[in-house]
Amino acid sequence: MRLLLISNSTNAGEEYLDYPKIEIRKFLGDKKVTGLFIPYAGVSITFDDYTKRVKERFNEVGHDIISIHDAEDPVSAVKNAEAIIVGGGNTWQLIKMIQDNQLIEAVREKVLNDTPYIGWSAGSNVACPTIKTTNDMPVVEPDSFNAFNLIKSQINPHYLDKNPDGHAGETREDRINEFLIANQDMSVLGLREGCMFRIEGDDISLIGTRPVRVFAYGKDPVELNAGDDFSNLI
Amino acid sequence: MRLLLISNSTNAGEEYLDYPKIEIRKFLGDKKVTGLFIPYAGVSITFDDYTKRVKERFNEVGHDIISIHDAEDPVSAVKNAEAIIVGGGNTWQLIKMIQDNQLIEAVREKVLNDTPYIGWSAGSNVACPTIKTTNDMPVVEPDSFNAFNLIKSQINPHYLDKNPDGHAGETREDRINEFLIANQDMSVLGLREGCMFRIEGDDISLIGTRPVRVFAYGKDPVELNAGDDFSNLI
Repeated sequence: MRLLLISNSTNAGEEYLDYPKIEIRKFLGDKKVTGLFIPYAGVSITFDDYTKRVKERFNEVGHDIISIHDAEDPVSAVKNAEAIIVGGGNTWQLIKMIQDNQLIEAVREKVLNDTPYIGWSAGSNVACPTIKTTNDMPVVEPDSFNAFNLIKSQINPHYLDKNPDGHAGETREDRINEFLIANQDMSVLGLREGCMFRIEGDDISLIGTRPVRVFAYGKDPVELNAGDDFSNLI
Repeated sequence: MRLLLISNSTNAGEEYLDYPKIEIRKFLGDKKVTGLFIPYAGVSITFDDYTKRVKERFNEVGHDIISIHDAEDPVSAVKNAEAIIVGGGNTWQLIKMIQDNQLIEAVREKVLNDTPYIGWSAGSNVACPTIKTTNDMPVVEPDSFNAFNLIKSQINPHYLDKNPDGHAGETREDRINEFLIANQDMSVLGLREGCMFRIEGDDISLIGTRPVRVFAYGKDPVELNAGDDFSNLI
């Protein structure tokens, strides 16, 4: 299985999808790949505009995309894809449209059979067993919280250490601790912005300059760095 | 209908439920009321501990609570309640347990028949038509996103103007705009910390020193202050 799971598309102050583009190029290789883009997480951008934006960045690094929203039969489009590319946005709309279009099993089977998968933000979240560690507002109601279930743990993308000063709402860590109490057999990977996992079968690496904060029920959180062993978690 | 819908239990640096306690006393009146407390949103606190904490604060202002988790029949407990008090925590566990215990209709009917309702944070969110404007992590999966539907709009509690510096994730306003695109006939009331709505039939007042940010599809957000007219929104 080959996955590139990216925390966020864009770091503050940078161009869209700029910081991960070199890793996307390396992950897809030197030969041009035309990936199937799933833009369903785009709520405040049209699927056409979203596809254009992502296509430009992929072209820049020698690759290309076509979008599933232009396909007559989304399941066939998945079956024929050279790579699966799932963009960020709203996780709830993303998973709802994935489920409505019967894509859970199609994508899962395809990726288990070694078609490369690239996701960022919501697109990394749906690679997990469920979407229960999303940060997004539940603006639509999907049939279920189940997702592609490609890795063992839950990623929390855009992992954030602190609230703004003076804000009394739960911190991200508080929220993840609630998840663990309700889901005691799961681990959560707090993937900070600017970071990603590259998974090549059993070879799992963290790329980025910040550690991942790993949460498990009844244990103190642990910070793991690039070079550490993630094999029990992914 | 009588509702006191509070953004948050506790302001940063203050004691639990301290800032709203005087408004709770005024809302319940001079004669001692023993409210029915619904502690289901408590995930990282036991229901017993949560109840004790809230009871202390209510006692301080001359009122009392009993908790629904101590009742043999939760629906009967609602039917016999002098007031309904719904505490904050995780909105998902709260709505799931409300639904699992068949309380949606029971509470709605009771409150429509003028039993006072007090909610804070998640407890204000469930007074709305749905929980689709929660900030909480979906740690458990409820049967539906439908809630008590006591007011016309969606409250976003703990409304927050900015992300921490350097964080590229969606702002609260971005998330609410996604909600509006997906739910174009609804309005959202961004209720900042330290603020609450007091609703006495048609008499609706905002209490607190900060304005409410009001969002509607296709319109610029508006800031409404104490003294402004909320009758079209609540």
